[in-house]
Amino acid sequence: MSTFTHLIRFLAKDGQIYYGDAILPSGVSDIAKATKARVIQGDIFGQYRITDQVAEVRMPLAPLARKDIGTVRCLGLNYEQHAKEANMPIPKYPVLFYKPVTSVSGPVDDIPVPQLAQEGEGLDYECELVVVIGKEANNVSESKALDYVLGYAVGNDVSHRDWQIKRGGGQWGLGKGFDGWAPFGPGIVSSSLIADPNNLAISTKLNGKTVQSSSTKDMIFGVAKTIAFLSQGTTLLPGDLIFTGTPQGVGMGRKPALWLKDGDNVEVSLEGVGSCVNRVVFDKPKAKL
Amino acid sequence: MSTFTHLIRFLAKDGQIYYGDAILPSGVSDIAKATKARVIQGDIFGQYRITDQVAEVRMPLAPLARKDIGTVRCLGLNYEQHAKEANMPIPKYPVLFYKPVTSVSGPVDDIPVPQLAQEGEGLDYECELVVVIGKEANNVSESKALDYVLGYAVGNDVSHRDWQIKRGGGQWGLGKGFDGWAPFGPGIVSSSLIADPNNLAISTKLNGKTVQSSSTKDMIFGVAKTIAFLSQGTTLLPGDLIFTGTPQGVGMGRKPALWLKDGDNVEVSLEGVGSCVNRVVFDKPKAKL
Repeated sequence: MSTFTHLIRFLAKDGQIYYGDAILPSGVSDIAKATKARVIQGDIFGQYRITDQVAEVRMPLAPLARKDIGTVRCLGLNYEQHAKEANMPIPKYPVLFYKPVTSVSGPVDDIPVPQLAQEGEGLDYECELVVVIGKEANNVSESKALDYVLGYAVGNDVSHRDWQIKRGGGQWGLGKGFDGWAPFGPGIVSSSLIADPNNLAISTKLNGKTVQSSSTKDMIFGVAKTIAFLSQGTTLLPGDLIFTGTPQGVGMGRKPALWLKDGDNVEVSLEGVGSCVNRVVFDKPKAKL
Repeated sequence: MSTFTHLIRFLAKDGQIYYGDAILPSGVSDIAKATKARVIQGDIFGQYRITDQVAEVRMPLAPLARKDIGTVRCLGLNYEQHAKEANMPIPKYPVLFYKPVTSVSGPVDDIPVPQLAQEGEGLDYECELVVVIGKEANNVSESKALDYVLGYAVGNDVSHRDWQIKRGGGQWGLGKGFDGWAPFGPGIVSSSLIADPNNLAISTKLNGKTVQSSSTKDMIFGVAKTIAFLSQGTTLLPGDLIFTGTPQGVGMGRKPALWLKDGDNVEVSLEGVGSCVNRVVFDKPKAKL
């Protein structure tokens, strides 16, 4: 059975939604540049087949359908330079929090900002390497951990610092969990193509200007160590996502702070994977009925 | 279409797993006492049918199958007397955290304690009213919020205080998220039978001795307010669970502290719903290969 190299999910020109193996021009690694893909049939986490049918991409979607996404785990403070800018000690163990599946969206989707998150201030970006679990993992060792990875993507752990830190009673879930606040994509690069996930350039551009630029080398807990740790006493399931933390350069770490505004354009990029480009769209106040 | 009153899921004497509407003897409200149920066919959140087939319960299971469970949200510090025993201020907004779906288990399942959670100390119980969302809810008002509830159950938000508080970098997810650390059941009582979810007795017995005994009246954010708040900018989906916090009497709040041990028997009960009785089982160390 042949396996995908660059998994995408997309609305095709024929009006259908497909999984596909992206066809990239020679020398191009940014999956967002794919205009065509070989249609995939079957279960991405089980038996599937890459067909001969080539479909044209009208719009890229989140690389996994909601029904195929399990638990969304995220790490906080997992880059040394980011822990320093946040004035936090280097954590001894991975700092784990979660996002709901409704926060997951695609590589070109808008980031909606609800009324609640227009209160206070602190709307912020966080570029992150996203691990997609491919097989059930329980109590796995660090040396075997990468065998459980389907592939990698890039994501944006959109955060509202006031709700995350000041108003959430210390728990980060609320201020990071709104609908569409975890865009990821542009596709999933097979783990077979990325020998070392901890040696990839990662960056964010805000309205075209670079605001985060680092390497996944700076992670405190690398991908293998993270998976091994999270699987202790906890079964990771196919389709679970792990957002592995963000490097320095977030808006909160700047002087003065740099907060996202209505209409801003945020691009997160990961070497060998590509970019997600999402626009910030503030919800309009509802008319009183 | 008739709707269920006491939804259970169970292994039947015929070896099949069914959803069913529990048949309770007259005057009995504890669903755990049901030995028979009318088999339900179809989608619990959509079109289903209570059939004439009566099946005998061999073993009760988590009232929802894993595929039918969405996001598991939990509130912290949501009872006044519990916030006081934890020496924490009364929160201004609901304190939200999450558990992974793999933590969900049934009313008689063991609570496995992995090696990682045998380090340090602080294994604790938390009886909680569990809300099961029945319809997609987004930006709903407090006055309409209960219309989105399928029903209510009781659950145990099993917690390891060292991992939750000292080793998790302040985030509670890890120390509360191990496999099987969110037993709930014994069934789901239809919201049509519970006019006011904030007027129910709730309690925990540890090895037969009452250790928590309160009323859902003591909640800081009642069920309707909680749903309305959590739905602001976040879509709650059918099958999402909300563990709504625990009253005073947890092991952490006692002097001396009272931690769960291997073999302990924990029973959480909610008025009009019934009880879950779960045994604490420490994992044995793995043989080195």
